[in-house]
Amino acid sequence: MNKTIGIFGGGQLGRMMAQAALPLNLECTFFESNADCPAAILGQVYSTEQDPNALQAFIESADVFSLEFENTPLADVDRLSQDKAIYPPRQALATAQNRLLEKELFQRLEIPVAPFRAVDSLESLQTAVAQLGLPIVLKTATGGYDGKGQFVLREAEQIDQAWQELGPAKSLIAESFVQFSREVSIIAVRGQDGEVKTWPLAENHHHHGILSHSIVPAPRSEALQPVAQDYITRLLNHLNYVGVLTLELFVTEQGLFANEMAPRVHNSGHWSIEGAVCSQFENHVRAVAGLPLGSTEVVRPTVMVNIIGQHPKSEDVLALNGAHLHLYNKSEREGRKLGHITLMPLNQSELTHLCRQLAEILPEPLALTQDITI
Amino acid sequence: MNKTIGIFGGGQLGRMMAQAALPLNLECTFFESNADCPAAILGQVYSTEQDPNALQAFIESADVFSLEFENTPLADVDRLSQDKAIYPPRQALATAQNRLLEKELFQRLEIPVAPFRAVDSLESLQTAVAQLGLPIVLKTATGGYDGKGQFVLREAEQIDQAWQELGPAKSLIAESFVQFSREVSIIAVRGQDGEVKTWPLAENHHHHGILSHSIVPAPRSEALQPVAQDYITRLLNHLNYVGVLTLELFVTEQGLFANEMAPRVHNSGHWSIEGAVCSQFENHVRAVAGLPLGSTEVVRPTVMVNIIGQHPKSEDVLALNGAHLHLYNKSEREGRKLGHITLMPLNQSELTHLCRQLAEILPEPLALTQDITI
Repeated sequence: MNKTIGIFGGGQLGRMMAQAALPLNLECTFFESNADCPAAILGQVYSTEQDPNALQAFIESADVFSLEFENTPLADVDRLSQDKAIYPPRQALATAQNRLLEKELFQRLEIPVAPFRAVDSLESLQTAVAQLGLPIVLKTATGGYDGKGQFVLREAEQIDQAWQELGPAKSLIAESFVQFSREVSIIAVRGQDGEVKTWPLAENHHHHGILSHSIVPAPRSEALQPVAQDYITRLLNHLNYVGVLTLELFVTEQGLFANEMAPRVHNSGHWSIEGAVCSQFENHVRAVAGLPLGSTEVVRPTVMVNIIGQHPKSEDVLALNGAHLHLYNKSEREGRKLGHITLMPLNQSELTHLCRQLAEILPEPLALTQDITI
Repeated sequence: MNKTIGIFGGGQLGRMMAQAALPLNLECTFFESNADCPAAILGQVYSTEQDPNALQAFIESADVFSLEFENTPLADVDRLSQDKAIYPPRQALATAQNRLLEKELFQRLEIPVAPFRAVDSLESLQTAVAQLGLPIVLKTATGGYDGKGQFVLREAEQIDQAWQELGPAKSLIAESFVQFSREVSIIAVRGQDGEVKTWPLAENHHHHGILSHSIVPAPRSEALQPVAQDYITRLLNHLNYVGVLTLELFVTEQGLFANEMAPRVHNSGHWSIEGAVCSQFENHVRAVAGLPLGSTEVVRPTVMVNIIGQHPKSEDVLALNGAHLHLYNKSEREGRKLGHITLMPLNQSELTHLCRQLAEILPEPLALTQDITI
């Protein structure tokens, strides 16, 4: 069995999938606009920039398909012939690409979410405000990224303005705010035989909307873990999912609330390369290739720190005890994810020490400037 | 710092070095006769089969050099210009390529070895037999592999025959046999700044001269570890070594005896990819690139099992709890190393269970058919 996996996207997630595939003698190919993408060193890139028929050639290049980008166009996926499967399945992708479908699915599966309403007219927006109260956040159901395609409505006078800004998108979602103490994510993998394995919850810290660092297992998460595991298992089974799925959750006084799902490996799971017996990347590849899943057991508590915008000196990072450096071979740009660092501290005091050192080394220490507690 | 490392050889050791180099944004190139070698997927291969000037092109392709093969011709190494370093250094390579120089170095550094004599004539062979007693093994000082270039002398009448067979090699070594209970190896890495880190001893089990499996840490090795560590550190410092060095040792009633050294990463260190905080491959690459060394601490006790001659079914191996599979993308051939499997059992009973399962799965279970004790 020497399958080739075709991956939609060739960024760092595709790169790390291919790294995990290599020791299993599984080749990867990539469909990606930029021929010089992070994954390029590990397999053939089919680039539309270079060849207008690249999609067809990409489809012919592989036996089974996957993706690293949840906004992979469904039209591209639909070009796959019937005998070539894509994992995760089309339905999971379609659901994750539409906030309304996604929230409705959460609701149907009895996974708690913030109250929301579908909005497709000024009237339905007024009704949503009347029913949900203020403040609310109005979002386009599809598209939008990093705060774009969003409007925070704090006062009733803003309704007209919000509708003018986002109304042209036609399909919107109005959501109540959730009072939460912290954000966590759960990552799980489902095999082609339906087996499900779950990694422990990650506690995620953001800085201006960008993931700064994740702590795994999330502190004080013993009671949350089985709940989150139950939620993500419902999603996996309902969607007849194959591969890795991520569910972002808010920790509130009323328990966990689902924020959104990502039908792919996730930045908050990068810790698993060193921190788990089998990483999210290897298990995703195993699932897509129809192989048995590996153990998701934690080897050691781990802190994953993102490298954003500018590279630190490699020698500074590698001098930290037990630190692992993962660079994505990307050029520097503000807000861009260039790599990540995995720390595996033995205890709280080593963790505090390592993170303080790292905050000095990183050109963009983001939220790392506050002491981390495990 | 985006160095390119040029590696003499492109087999599985070069492949795993390049895998470790990738997340550090270090590229690798390879000098190797076979353009379709295991490392080819990870970097440019300069093949003499394809281009008679490949060596020059290879030398121009990289900033710093290393090797995966201890018999890398010194003449090739000498083609490097003075401003391009090779790690390990030439002297280490020259010593490891000559059994006499190697044993003399062990002796000079007071590392115990079996009694030996240099032999370069029939007379000196007769003297050696008189001084060492019988049996002895007569070996060519250079070359020889898997029992070739060796003659086991059990009776004085064989002296003439032995000399006829091996005499033409001119430089020979006569060695006494060592009564040993088991074979172990120690692997260490030395950085460009002289820092030394050592992994725990591996206990190595062979089958007809081929490594079958390694157990790390070697059972009952608490007292042996500091001794072995001391021996390898003497070698590293004396040779002003940079990179990973392996020292194979016999466990005898008189303590550890050095068998031979390998100036490279070693099959008995493959366990470290999952079993240690930083693997032999990553630390070798770090040392060669002038980066700080990583921790050699053990994450979990590990058993590494070689895949020889024929591939098992991947799905059978990956179904074993916690098993990692590393395939080298090589075609099947009797006695050939095709890959390895890492097991990280939680206790003796899981280990016994996993190894018995593996012995059934592997087409060539080698020495794995006997129960392993940790």
